Amino acid sequence: MGWAIALHGGAGDIPVNLPAERREPREAALRRILQIGVSALNARCSPLDVVELVVCELENSPHFNAGKGSVLTTNGTVEMEACIMDGNSKRCGAVSGVTTVVNPISLARQVMEKTPHIYLAFDGAESFAREQGLKTVDRSHFITPENIERLKQAKEANRVQQDYTQPIKTQDQKEPMDPDGDSKLGTVGCVAVDSLGNLAAATSTGGLVNKMAGRIGDTPIIGAGTYANKLCAVSATGRGEAIIRDTVARDVAAVMEYKGLGLKEAAAYIVHEVTPKGTTGLVAVSATGEIAMPFNTTGMFRASATEDGFMEVAIWESE
Amino acid sequence: MGWAIALHGGAGDIPVNLPAERREPREAALRRILQIGVSALNARCSPLDVVELVVCELENSPHFNAGKGSVLTTNGTVEMEACIMDGNSKRCGAVSGVTTVVNPISLARQVMEKTPHIYLAFDGAESFAREQGLKTVDRSHFITPENIERLKQAKEANRVQQDYTQPIKTQDQKEPMDPDGDSKLGTVGCVAVDSLGNLAAATSTGGLVNKMAGRIGDTPIIGAGTYANKLCAVSATGRGEAIIRDTVARDVAAVMEYKGLGLKEAAAYIVHEVTPKGTTGLVAVSATGEIAMPFNTTGMFRASATEDGFMEVAIWESE
Repeated sequence: MGWAIALHGGAGDIPVNLPAERREPREAALRRILQIGVSALNARCSPLDVVELVVCELENSPHFNAGKGSVLTTNGTVEMEACIMDGNSKRCGAVSGVTTVVNPISLARQVMEKTPHIYLAFDGAESFAREQGLKTVDRSHFITPENIERLKQAKEANRVQQDYTQPIKTQDQKEPMDPDGDSKLGTVGCVAVDSLGNLAAATSTGGLVNKMAGRIGDTPIIGAGTYANKLCAVSATGRGEAIIRDTVARDVAAVMEYKGLGLKEAAAYIVHEVTPKGTTGLVAVSATGEIAMPFNTTGMFRASATEDGFMEVAIWESE
Repeated sequence: MGWAIALHGGAGDIPVNLPAERREPREAALRRILQIGVSALNARCSPLDVVELVVCELENSPHFNAGKGSVLTTNGTVEMEACIMDGNSKRCGAVSGVTTVVNPISLARQVMEKTPHIYLAFDGAESFAREQGLKTVDRSHFITPENIERLKQAKEANRVQQDYTQPIKTQDQKEPMDPDGDSKLGTVGCVAVDSLGNLAAATSTGGLVNKMAGRIGDTPIIGAGTYANKLCAVSATGRGEAIIRDTVARDVAAVMEYKGLGLKEAAAYIVHEVTPKGTTGLVAVSATGEIAMPFNTTGMFRASATEDGFMEVAIWESE
């Protein structure tokens, strides 16, 4: 067996007739960033380094709901979250309430490497980022016109949006209100395994459009949005509250560990038999190089590759 | 079968020769608060109400590291965390970074009941507490002379203390430095089941002495410090980072669900075979009214009762 990598840019209700001008930039970003991960694995970077690198790239892309593309809270602010975990040691790091750090996933890595803790949030996380010299920018850097418009729409519709959603339609309006027709956004994540079976997982998000200030979702929760052990690495996306309640990422691994299922069977069981329909997608790799990318939403922006030359970028089922 | 209840006031390295003046007030508090839970169950209060009520009482006691007895961060501030979960619905609520709310567990309950989210933290959690009219006090209310001294000792020893620890001893000092000889403090929690098999779990903590500002521990993490489903309810205590890494509370339930073990076997397996020695204790009840209270530390402040008249308050093993 060789290495394997899988990444996602969010799961949700992605219409199958998504126009090319909205689909293609995201597919191109996934393809480009997948290639970065592939090159890093070919260069024998550790899976932990690879998932951090790939998630940094996804954070830097405005096409996904993490880092630069983060959606806004009900107060119009950005509160980013991220988590990283190493499978062999189960060492992990997580952050929430990050407002100025360009790459929250790298801050999560620093929490893991440089503190006795796993998880830092809000002002404490920001102070730690400054101590460690991580790249920060003014809060306004993350507040894009697109996300101001998304927040406005969500407030008009008086609802909290899922991390990946359709443009909101009001009762009297058949067409999306999104000014650029481009609100297809989602949490990002990456899982990787090398040819020795070393595993790692990383996830990053801006959370929900119109979320309450202070809301923590599944992404930074070890066992919910992110998990890795010696059997597999998992990054989940979708309705955060459902993913927390069903401890989705840990449960994929737990079904392997306690029931003896393989990765594909375990991941399919959790996504199709346990979590409510329309809530959950995930990417996972096993120590033996298998990949699973099930979702019970309409679609999931995703990409994967293996050392033997397989490579895929997809959004909906059976493409 | 009838109802069952179990509560804890922290697990850790509790010396078996703990003087009576330090042991007895905590045993008395556990006995008194257990009786409150028993009365509530006899009055047919729901397990969710019972665990909230019991944890409020534990928070109001200065003898435990939660609410009034919360230990201090490295900045000399209090940042409390709490989590509550209902087994049947898997509805849950959690808070972190709470600084003025008298009963963080009730704030967690309000997050569960009144928001579309599960988990609010820091300023957002405090704002929500004010909106909901929860009882708040000045931050100084939580900062006791005992905890100022504990922080001073921890800083002198240059280490982060476990949530329940011995008084710190320096190399040249055989006796505890704790001025009141009374630093036996721990996270608190309660699990309960009624005669119909409805389950609930609640946990609350001040965290670690000398923790970094912003540090989140296992208590508010669904599946780590707190978990309930239709099979069992679990509240864990000990080294938060170890409990997060091993998703302790969910894993007790997962071993029951996926391996078919009973509660006692599942809880013993996780605490004695999975988590590192010296890190973890938990209280758990099953839908059929079983109780398990294993720990791999020297002791765990704990109490339990069942409808058939069994009642126990204990600290060490085989008392």
